Amino acid sequence: MSLIVTGTIGIDTVETPAGEVREGVLGGSCAYFAAAAQHHGAVNIVAAVGEDFPEEHMAKLSGLKGVDRRGLEVRAGSKTFRWGGKYHNNMDHRDTTFTDLNVLIEAPPVIPDEYKDAQYVFLANAHPMVQLGMLEQLPGRRLAVADTMDLWIDTARAELDQLITKVDGLVLNYDEAQLLTGHNNTVAAAKHILDMGPSFVVVKKGEHGCLFVIRDQDGVGIGALPAFPAETVVDPTGAGDSFAGGMMGYLAHDQNGEPEFNLARLKAALAHGTVMASFTIETFSLDRLASLTTNELGERFDEFARMLRVH
Amino acid sequence: MSLIVTGTIGIDTVETPAGEVREGVLGGSCAYFAAAAQHHGAVNIVAAVGEDFPEEHMAKLSGLKGVDRRGLEVRAGSKTFRWGGKYHNNMDHRDTTFTDLNVLIEAPPVIPDEYKDAQYVFLANAHPMVQLGMLEQLPGRRLAVADTMDLWIDTARAELDQLITKVDGLVLNYDEAQLLTGHNNTVAAAKHILDMGPSFVVVKKGEHGCLFVIRDQDGVGIGALPAFPAETVVDPTGAGDSFAGGMMGYLAHDQNGEPEFNLARLKAALAHGTVMASFTIETFSLDRLASLTTNELGERFDEFARMLRVH
Repeated sequence: MSLIVTGTIGIDTVETPAGEVREGVLGGSCAYFAAAAQHHGAVNIVAAVGEDFPEEHMAKLSGLKGVDRRGLEVRAGSKTFRWGGKYHNNMDHRDTTFTDLNVLIEAPPVIPDEYKDAQYVFLANAHPMVQLGMLEQLPGRRLAVADTMDLWIDTARAELDQLITKVDGLVLNYDEAQLLTGHNNTVAAAKHILDMGPSFVVVKKGEHGCLFVIRDQDGVGIGALPAFPAETVVDPTGAGDSFAGGMMGYLAHDQNGEPEFNLARLKAALAHGTVMASFTIETFSLDRLASLTTNELGERFDEFARMLRVH
Repeated sequence: MSLIVTGTIGIDTVETPAGEVREGVLGGSCAYFAAAAQHHGAVNIVAAVGEDFPEEHMAKLSGLKGVDRRGLEVRAGSKTFRWGGKYHNNMDHRDTTFTDLNVLIEAPPVIPDEYKDAQYVFLANAHPMVQLGMLEQLPGRRLAVADTMDLWIDTARAELDQLITKVDGLVLNYDEAQLLTGHNNTVAAAKHILDMGPSFVVVKKGEHGCLFVIRDQDGVGIGALPAFPAETVVDPTGAGDSFAGGMMGYLAHDQNGEPEFNLARLKAALAHGTVMASFTIETFSLDRLASLTTNELGERFDEFARMLRVH
């Protein structure tokens, strides 16, 4: 079924704890999500870049076979979103070294008419009003999931609360779940968010995997998955967005008939997202996601599923 | 097969983030380990307490049907080890409010002759020289596992290194694995310790589960398991020791014939340890471990195994 993602396509500068720096690489939530999701099937992207967006980055996006770029607006007179980050030693924390919002503070990109029947919708992190605006233009949605961040919890709480009542799923980081709910216990935090409206909540814990709660026909289910153990982490940027891309790509495309959305299906989707993220962090930018083959993906998924078999 | 644990039996004072305090409850690594392991079969304990050890605590230990107390020395003229801790909001960090070592700085307890053919050995956290001394008295061991802590990494490194070469497995906390090896990446840290001698290493991550590496007939295997998601955490004290107790109890007692020790068996053992720890934290002291039934344990293990099935 059709899958759409709205978010950023940006130009990143990343510094690792070892001091290695990559300047001006392709990044952004929408780029990472799409590069992941396209391994499962087609994904329509909605984003805006400026006229400074490098030709080589556009060529990289074009090289992702499942990505439909009709919703990628190249805005004359505007500049592309740029972000810089420096990772701490444990790779699970980073400092933002600069943020040039540029095109992000202009009018949001337009959703092409031919995208408006989208059934699976992912609203990558943005101001909740922008996310709400996008959502309203997608009346055919079956499953809409949003990501958010601490900034909106602190500065746009009312709008975020409104968004949360309108989506089917919310994906957010560990500390953000605590910040949003005041609960230090992750299960309690996730259940609290569930009570705010969505039918499932995924708490991302970086190297520690994820925890989720879902309300389905069997009641409220709770679960947790570890991350795929990674010895070499080159650049964790985009891990969360490609996790979401793997999850949503699986939900939209890997199915027989019209499966019920329930705990088992969410769990399989999260496992696919987990495996996808484990590839993302192996290189800078989208490089590993771009080179990834169906075989490699399948093999690591099987390895992950086998790792989780305890009897 | 026979299982022995050496460690502490103490009197704890625990304060929760909510300000609830329990004074003078039964605790100590050996007590938590044994209360967990005895659900799988007999466990022989080696520990010393002072003449101040309360009758009610002794009665509690006696009530644990699988625990053999012939190695529990009640030392005249000595005082029992006492520890106080206060948990932070997230329950994964705590401050030690006081430590009265008392009997722990006297001569170590004696291993009774009838315990000396023990095949499965767990050396709970102690000075590595004490752990080495215990190990040397157990020539019949098939699988010896040690726990340690930051204090010994900082103050008795040479002795700890020696211990690590002599045990089959090492169990330690996340930050301790980093401190011991200088690696911030947990997989790299665990593999580094594997290169120091043991055939497996388990890194405990509290609410985030555990990560492990093992060298078996198939080479080096790596894996991770989440914790069992817990919404209500009353007191995390003893979670790590009962995790080890569930793991070692399973390895010593739940087997058909003489199974090979390999990744699959370690993983099943760690899953049993994980489930055991999830009960421990539901109450103060050993209360939940004492009331736990075989049915409850089996049901939660099945639930955990089902939670980890991703396709």
